[in-house]
Amino acid sequence: MGTIGDAGEFGLIARLTRRLPQGSDVRLGPGDDAAVIAAPDARVVATTDLLVEGRHFRRDWSGPYDIGRKAAAQNLADIVAMGARPTALLVGFAAPPDTCVDWAETLYDGLADECRVVGASVAGGDVVGASEITLAVTALGDLGGAAPLTRSGARPGDVVAVRGRLGYAAAGLALLDAGRDGPAELLAAHRRPEPPYAAGDEARSHGATALLDVSDGLVQDLGHIAAASGVQIDVDSSAVPAPEILGPDGQHHALTGGEDHAFAATFPPGTVPPAWTVIGTVAEGAGVRVDGREPPTGAWDHFPT
Amino acid sequence: MGTIGDAGEFGLIARLTRRLPQGSDVRLGPGDDAAVIAAPDARVVATTDLLVEGRHFRRDWSGPYDIGRKAAAQNLADIVAMGARPTALLVGFAAPPDTCVDWAETLYDGLADECRVVGASVAGGDVVGASEITLAVTALGDLGGAAPLTRSGARPGDVVAVRGRLGYAAAGLALLDAGRDGPAELLAAHRRPEPPYAAGDEARSHGATALLDVSDGLVQDLGHIAAASGVQIDVDSSAVPAPEILGPDGQHHALTGGEDHAFAATFPPGTVPPAWTVIGTVAEGAGVRVDGREPPTGAWDHFPT
Repeated sequence: MGTIGDAGEFGLIARLTRRLPQGSDVRLGPGDDAAVIAAPDARVVATTDLLVEGRHFRRDWSGPYDIGRKAAAQNLADIVAMGARPTALLVGFAAPPDTCVDWAETLYDGLADECRVVGASVAGGDVVGASEITLAVTALGDLGGAAPLTRSGARPGDVVAVRGRLGYAAAGLALLDAGRDGPAELLAAHRRPEPPYAAGDEARSHGATALLDVSDGLVQDLGHIAAASGVQIDVDSSAVPAPEILGPDGQHHALTGGEDHAFAATFPPGTVPPAWTVIGTVAEGAGVRVDGREPPTGAWDHFPT
Repeated sequence: MGTIGDAGEFGLIARLTRRLPQGSDVRLGPGDDAAVIAAPDARVVATTDLLVEGRHFRRDWSGPYDIGRKAAAQNLADIVAMGARPTALLVGFAAPPDTCVDWAETLYDGLADECRVVGASVAGGDVVGASEITLAVTALGDLGGAAPLTRSGARPGDVVAVRGRLGYAAAGLALLDAGRDGPAELLAAHRRPEPPYAAGDEARSHGATALLDVSDGLVQDLGHIAAASGVQIDVDSSAVPAPEILGPDGQHHALTGGEDHAFAATFPPGTVPPAWTVIGTVAEGAGVRVDGREPPTGAWDHFPT
């Protein structure tokens, strides 16, 4: 029942690290100036995200376990989206001194459990005081000798395909915002995305030319591929899965909602892996067209006015 | 004169990354799901720190350039303290939407310039909105085939030595806290630490048994070596440099002040490198003794009550 202020920096670190199993990629875990992680490929893939209370999560809408799962998932998905295998997370945790140690411990359980899904570990981090809860998650990964799967390799004639749920998290967020308490599947999708991590290996082994995880919304993220690759992407909205559970705004959520951490990729024709859904094509030009028109707006802006 | 809210997430990222030169260790820099950094040793050294406005820096006491230099320096010093060569930083930047883009650009100039000192690059990151400015800095480094220099290798009979300034940053902070505007050297030491980065190579090549950077205060940090190594450390306070400029509390600042990012190491007798100052010895036992007595308190607590 104690607070992290009572536990103190070193007491809190001791209580949190005790809950963090260290996998075989971790050569030196928490407790020194830095961690040491295996990087057998002789390159390391690295990404970092900040999650701020009230903007990226709400404690009245999500419990600490789900917040931890989600914070880990969104960074692990970025590693997988490079075609790499996640090896470790580093987690910076800022919180008011009156935050319960229990809350922090449960958050770290969520981080550790999401890492376990992909065989990674929480290998290091930092804890500091702050007036709002902030999580800074860095994920590391290994390419295993392959070239990174970037956003810049899409070529005219490729097809565009997706793997994973689209619009579920956005629909769940809209429900919470409206004070609704179901459908449970959508609320759960907002609280704890379940990225289909196998997508990275599938995309790589089937010769994907570009890959990313959908974090800002499908149309906006396809725009990143179009810009980086110097191509136009044409989406057929009727091919984008928008099941009935998403409600009347289902297609809008599926096209613009982020945070499900589905994967989107481009493949040469005829090479799309079985579990993927073809939703469009790559052409010469620029930008994204949906059914031949300018796409809908409504994607996530991190600095809303 | 615009704000980061006006620039928007992608506009801000474009303006910041433009200022970040990418060194030869960066295989893939900003703009994709993750960066790819060389790790020739097949292991990567990784550390992360959070810096929160009002707790780790004050905008009325430090300009953005110095805040950037300091945020980079404290993480690069952690990499050097493992005996490794820093290769890259990832930077998470959270700020209120009304923050000036100029301020953010100057912050990133400071980050980039501190990286340049050690041949590293700011290779990736994240920008988000928040109610207070927070920096989440992750540093990566390469061991070049050597074993990491941890805190756990000190042995009875070793000597304890330091390299770099002690107490300057703490004295500078005390002056700012008292509303004083000099001595300039001390204020500058608080605003922009200058870790003697060569210390890592020196310690490694001279056979140091343990190494860390002094971030919490000399006595407290030596306590980390004592605990990790299972030894007692005896400090001779008269050997700890406390020049007159530090003022009447000079010895206290030198023993307990953090944030100069000096380095402390243990060496077998007779192997201390030239630029280092011997300040104590390692014995069987536990904890740190200063002149044979319990050490003074006053070290930094990240969750002050």
